[in-house]
Amino acid sequence: MKLAELSERSGVSTATIKYYLREGLLQPGRRITATQAEYSEEHLRRLRLVRALIQVAKIPVSTTREVLSALQDDSLDHNARLGTAVWALPHGPAQDEEDPATETARRRVDTLFERMGWLYSRASGATSPAYGMLVTAIVTLERLGYPCGIEDLEPHARAMDQLAVTDLDLVERYGGSPDEQVEAAVALTVLYEPVLLSLRRLAQAEESRRRFAGK
Amino acid sequence: MKLAELSERSGVSTATIKYYLREGLLQPGRRITATQAEYSEEHLRRLRLVRALIQVAKIPVSTTREVLSALQDDSLDHNARLGTAVWALPHGPAQDEEDPATETARRRVDTLFERMGWLYSRASGATSPAYGMLVTAIVTLERLGYPCGIEDLEPHARAMDQLAVTDLDLVERYGGSPDEQVEAAVALTVLYEPVLLSLRRLAQAEESRRRFAGK
Repeated sequence: MKLAELSERSGVSTATIKYYLREGLLQPGRRITATQAEYSEEHLRRLRLVRALIQVAKIPVSTTREVLSALQDDSLDHNARLGTAVWALPHGPAQDEEDPATETARRRVDTLFERMGWLYSRASGATSPAYGMLVTAIVTLERLGYPCGIEDLEPHARAMDQLAVTDLDLVERYGGSPDEQVEAAVALTVLYEPVLLSLRRLAQAEESRRRFAGK
Repeated sequence: MKLAELSERSGVSTATIKYYLREGLLQPGRRITATQAEYSEEHLRRLRLVRALIQVAKIPVSTTREVLSALQDDSLDHNARLGTAVWALPHGPAQDEEDPATETARRRVDTLFERMGWLYSRASGATSPAYGMLVTAIVTLERLGYPCGIEDLEPHARAMDQLAVTDLDLVERYGGSPDEQVEAAVALTVLYEPVLLSLRRLAQAEESRRRFAGK
């Protein structure tokens, strides 16, 4: 397809597509004349992912480029890349202070991985952005005087462990080549975050009505 | 306690506390001399909540003021305010277009509430920010070509329904007066969001290793 059709089908303006091409977020099309290139379904798919990361999840362009290059790391077998790509998604400012609160939080997270049987996270956890995000969140909760012990973390981890089965089923059902599945996993991870957080707030409102109604 | 002690115990600078006082996010202390006021444990508690909302959850000052005033709505019984306050937490830009995709997403959410037996959400859902956030997320997923049918929403809703029991147990265990519990519910809702999202990414990485390792 031509650039105009790629723009129409993706809902991304031609100016923005050209910007993504210049930034290397989208591979160049197959050149057919001096001024025109031909784009494939693969370009469309990649463009949807880039849009999910940049426009929806507000991930900076430079970080998006890193996530995309992790997707294409041929040193990993195709399907292992799926886990790695989700695991490599960036988060907010890192907790890099080496203070006692951070150390305590780290030990708690390691105990959690142990209890959950999360062997992969236990082996490589400390280098994952998701690990940093979790440690930062625990430190913040405790600094503000709210509890976040291992007994509070574990039910949350169990719920996410169950839901990961559903999430991966969704990725497999979405189908396509291994490449497409890795991209879908990253996009679905970030795009389902507001789904999950809004459902959590609604469920909490329901539960507090059930518990306290009329009191 | 004096302003200096309030600052020390909360970890919020005196300049920021004075700003919160001017903005009406914190009730004035009991004046003891022309230049000094006395602050209570209640001020400390409120200050922790304000800090969670503004500095951690990045909720704007004006919106924080609205959330706080919902907490003090005496037309609701004490415990019903807990659900209302969480439910009133703001979200990103609203989906206010009246297009067919939004209508379809709204009907899907209504069906979900029906299936989940979420009576309170069914009765008042459309006015909740969490409802708007959910509708927007569904529209975005489908626009980008990713699935988000009722069969995808339901397992997420069931997981959050289970977790809400744990979340409310945590609020009750945190203890204190009904006022303190409402504040803790709001703070814990926003502060546990990064905990949940990071655990979800770690769980997905584990599940994809389990499923695809060596393939």
